[in-house]
Amino acid sequence: MGSSSAAPWKHLLLGSIQANSHLKHCSYFQLATVSSSSKPSNRTVVFRGFQDDGDRILINTDTRTRKIDDLKHCPFAEICWYFTDSWEQFRISGHVDVIDGTNPDPVKLQQREKSWFACSLKSRMQYTMPTPRISIHDPPSQTPSLDPSVGPTDTFCLLVLDPDQVDYLNLKSNERLVFTSEPSVNGERLWTSEQVNP
Amino acid sequence: MGSSSAAPWKHLLLGSIQANSHLKHCSYFQLATVSSSSKPSNRTVVFRGFQDDGDRILINTDTRTRKIDDLKHCPFAEICWYFTDSWEQFRISGHVDVIDGTNPDPVKLQQREKSWFACSLKSRMQYTMPTPRISIHDPPSQTPSLDPSVGPTDTFCLLVLDPDQVDYLNLKSNERLVFTSEPSVNGERLWTSEQVNP
Repeated sequence: MGSSSAAPWKHLLLGSIQANSHLKHCSYFQLATVSSSSKPSNRTVVFRGFQDDGDRILINTDTRTRKIDDLKHCPFAEICWYFTDSWEQFRISGHVDVIDGTNPDPVKLQQREKSWFACSLKSRMQYTMPTPRISIHDPPSQTPSLDPSVGPTDTFCLLVLDPDQVDYLNLKSNERLVFTSEPSVNGERLWTSEQVNP
Repeated sequence: MGSSSAAPWKHLLLGSIQANSHLKHCSYFQLATVSSSSKPSNRTVVFRGFQDDGDRILINTDTRTRKIDDLKHCPFAEICWYFTDSWEQFRISGHVDVIDGTNPDPVKLQQREKSWFACSLKSRMQYTMPTPRISIHDPPSQTPSLDPSVGPTDTFCLLVLDPDQVDYLNLKSNERLVFTSEPSVNGERLWTSEQVNP
């Protein structure tokens, strides 16, 4: 068992992203939440990088999706990220901060704006579309337009997952490592890692 | 909106499995559950086919894994199955029946045995390995052996997921269909489907 103040799983994850970067889907993972009826929910989302140079994981979503209701009910999520070429799995669990346009923290609003402008115009267009998962009655009356210089729509929401446990499994070497953390006195996470049976 | 007593999502799923069958990982999906601490869990598992010719989904697992504790606490799961080549996602939620060797139902025990013998010898060997996710202290003292004619080990467990909702998303055609069901008077599920905004 080792201990360190830097997240020791991050270089493993960056290595896997690099090793699988020729695959478009290598930046997709599955995000599990708990619904307000206390049942599990699971969907594919896109990895939008780490917050600043830290360990927190960024995900963009629409405020009108059910995962927002889920996270208001239970603010925890578990990512399952399987790398199809290197046969590696990362299970990353932690608390999720939901940052929409009503957030009172100006630093968080700035981060949300940064994530908006980091999106392609095509991705931004999704947030102007009709409400997801409601019945299609009529086709949209007009193609929506979007000014590339204008900031996030009300529907744009940034999720910031702060990992507190990472379970790494390598199916080629048949090795498994579990990383756990607790916030230390100065607010930094102190990570420990343990090699366990696969 | 249409209605039918046969599961109308099944031909879509079989089509996706077929279209992606050149990829080894096309039979892998992510299974979300809720832990006893009411937090979400998520991991990759292998699709082991449908029960008989029905709609229920078979998964093999080890009784010593945490998903068994999760399912005892909350017997529901959501599968997220993303097909990387055809850009299709199936979210399949339902109740999970956990069938281990102590199950009192002889028909279920027979199904468990059938699933055991349907596994490769290499897969069966996994169930003789040391307890998953506990610290590695010593290497195994001897390589375990397994008689191919002998039935399931105590650690072998069959999960049977009975879908009650399927959310299908096609990212190429940008179409989304939600299938929902309720058991009808004779025990068969009555499915309805609706085209919704993606």
